[in-house]
Amino acid sequence: MRRPFFVYFYAMLTISQPLAISQRGQQMPASPIRKLVPFAEAAKKKGIKVYHLNIGQPDIETPKMALDAVRHFDFKVLEYSHSAGNESYRRKLAAYYKRVGIDVDYQQIIVTTGGSEAILFGFMSCLDAGDEVIIPEPFYANYNGFAVAANVVVKPLTSYIENGFALPPVEEFEKMITPRTKGIVICNPNNPTGYLYSREEMETLKEIAIRHGLYIFSDEAYRDFCYSGVHISAMNLRGAEDNVLMMDTISKRYSACGGRIGALVTRNQAVLDTVMKFAQARLSPPSFAQILGEAATDLPADYFNATKAEYLKRRDVLVGRLNRIPGVYCPNPGGAFYAMASLPVDDSDVFCQWLLESFSYNNQTVMLAPAGGFYGTKGLGKKEVRLAYVLNTEDLGRAMDCLERALQEYPGRTN
Amino acid sequence: MRRPFFVYFYAMLTISQPLAISQRGQQMPASPIRKLVPFAEAAKKKGIKVYHLNIGQPDIETPKMALDAVRHFDFKVLEYSHSAGNESYRRKLAAYYKRVGIDVDYQQIIVTTGGSEAILFGFMSCLDAGDEVIIPEPFYANYNGFAVAANVVVKPLTSYIENGFALPPVEEFEKMITPRTKGIVICNPNNPTGYLYSREEMETLKEIAIRHGLYIFSDEAYRDFCYSGVHISAMNLRGAEDNVLMMDTISKRYSACGGRIGALVTRNQAVLDTVMKFAQARLSPPSFAQILGEAATDLPADYFNATKAEYLKRRDVLVGRLNRIPGVYCPNPGGAFYAMASLPVDDSDVFCQWLLESFSYNNQTVMLAPAGGFYGTKGLGKKEVRLAYVLNTEDLGRAMDCLERALQEYPGRTN
Repeated sequence: MRRPFFVYFYAMLTISQPLAISQRGQQMPASPIRKLVPFAEAAKKKGIKVYHLNIGQPDIETPKMALDAVRHFDFKVLEYSHSAGNESYRRKLAAYYKRVGIDVDYQQIIVTTGGSEAILFGFMSCLDAGDEVIIPEPFYANYNGFAVAANVVVKPLTSYIENGFALPPVEEFEKMITPRTKGIVICNPNNPTGYLYSREEMETLKEIAIRHGLYIFSDEAYRDFCYSGVHISAMNLRGAEDNVLMMDTISKRYSACGGRIGALVTRNQAVLDTVMKFAQARLSPPSFAQILGEAATDLPADYFNATKAEYLKRRDVLVGRLNRIPGVYCPNPGGAFYAMASLPVDDSDVFCQWLLESFSYNNQTVMLAPAGGFYGTKGLGKKEVRLAYVLNTEDLGRAMDCLERALQEYPGRTN
Repeated sequence: MRRPFFVYFYAMLTISQPLAISQRGQQMPASPIRKLVPFAEAAKKKGIKVYHLNIGQPDIETPKMALDAVRHFDFKVLEYSHSAGNESYRRKLAAYYKRVGIDVDYQQIIVTTGGSEAILFGFMSCLDAGDEVIIPEPFYANYNGFAVAANVVVKPLTSYIENGFALPPVEEFEKMITPRTKGIVICNPNNPTGYLYSREEMETLKEIAIRHGLYIFSDEAYRDFCYSGVHISAMNLRGAEDNVLMMDTISKRYSACGGRIGALVTRNQAVLDTVMKFAQARLSPPSFAQILGEAATDLPADYFNATKAEYLKRRDVLVGRLNRIPGVYCPNPGGAFYAMASLPVDDSDVFCQWLLESFSYNNQTVMLAPAGGFYGTKGLGKKEVRLAYVLNTEDLGRAMDCLERALQEYPGRTN
């Protein structure tokens, strides 16, 4: 069955056009955090303990009853589920939303493969190539990725560490709006800043959206982790029912990141119908983790209290320690499990690499996320880092010991 | 905390621009099969038994050892996996590919959320908005969906039932190639036709791809189900290593459709690097079904024999019965578990609906997929239907009894 050699030779000769990567593929941003991974691995090979404050992978145990539900499945054929997710799960999700004050019908929920797919489906359904979305920066870096995938243009609107990353004023939004502006993306409480938007800020957003006919893409992945203040869901902005798409996930809520189960929720029927077509094309969300998600909706109302108390304790340790280090400033985050801090360094990219490559204290070091990757405007965030408080307070304390010492030794220290 | 009424009133007054669904969203095709679902449900409500030959959901049991592996997971935190999939799984997948004659390194495999995501990532990485891909029609309808999501233009190249849906001749491909043509999509063995491409056809594809600098997107979801002839993987086209992206899935191989685990495999490093960026943006593929997929790679080599023997028996029953019905023609499919048949009817859309709405035989009927949805060229496939032989031979026989009788009674019968 082998072909004579001259056939291959001929084939080689006939190469007339090169194979190119798409422009979209070239524009696709690499993960801003991943580039430090080789340095972390090298540090570990040298026997250095690395405290990972760089990623939002909680160490909290996934609820055992939810994992057990997966262990005890009883089907013999792992079939496709409904493209919108299992009806039984969607009904229980609707009940969960009702408990947290969001009144939606199960038919207004489409189960997605993680919050990621909810964002992608939302963009794809509402935005065309060249359309613009305004996103307060710093923002979750992967919004860039989904925007590139959908050929959508991200217009970053800067928020500032000095006022804790509050929503920029209305006038700043209005200045950015063009005929191609189709939406605003928010994450509330915010990743990476931990900022929790107030009722007034949410009403402001609503008024901008209604006045200019914009969608509000509201990422509420961290809804269940609010420490100071009340979470105002975009789903409860009266009068903006058609504007709002909520993107949700069980990843953080139940520490179930690997399940890849999220949801897109909206009262806009035309959007729902459109999202459903994208959902049908990819057939169904993962079956096993839907079982987990459904079981988890049965957790008692006080389930989040223990987790929240733990995160609150961690936040207080982290933020307290940070603000006691000379030259460091960290606004107190109202929710999620992230904090942004400004450091007395020349360049947080260089500093974070230096921490892994050239520093250790008691044979330990800390891995942070340089903030540059969370800004859409080039050059911003050079002195900032994001810290995820996903470790216990003892480890957080040791990580802060490392950071404090590192800032004394770092050759690029400023002021 | 309630806002005075006039605020809502003001908000209502300020609606100045409508909210629009994206052009992309409007172009997104609805599932061609789903539109018959309400008629099937209505038939069932009337107490009629419906034989589902319309969808590729196998009734074969998922291997118990693979399901058991999921039952016995022992982690406490359901973490993100690596964005490319667990290394242990990728290594075992590479070994599986080696066993079926495809020599790839595990680093040339990126685990995806179903074969669906592999198709989307392949399109996104290699094709820009407005780029064209040639796809022999009839083809898997969801390619349309992924093309619309990526703003890619599908150029259908008709294959014909008269010669069993063989690959169209080279000249027909060459006629369709424009400066925007960037790739060819094939499914081998084919869904919906069951056609298994010969070595000569695969070499022809290779030569076209090399001559014109085109990618070959090769969907090999049904590789393990070939009955007559040998499966030639596009990965084994020597000299076209950089051209070929293989899209794969465990859905059909292990009857694990709900797991949502697939893979994109290529030796083109630039493509791999680009796909990896899309993979990072969505964080990771589902964790539970990776466990299942990894366990399944340990199945003995003869595992597929029993499944293949069962499908072969079904194929022979189905195709034999179809060709004995006056006016029906069904070429013998070489692989997968689909067959396309031409029927003596005016319009297979109307006929398939009539089967559910207005017909029963012994209180039973059959649900088929009208072929129109598998053609990119409007108007083709009007007399054809796709049948998935995913039922046991007894049920297939009863379904054929229904079809035979229905063709006698159907008012729109031709010739």
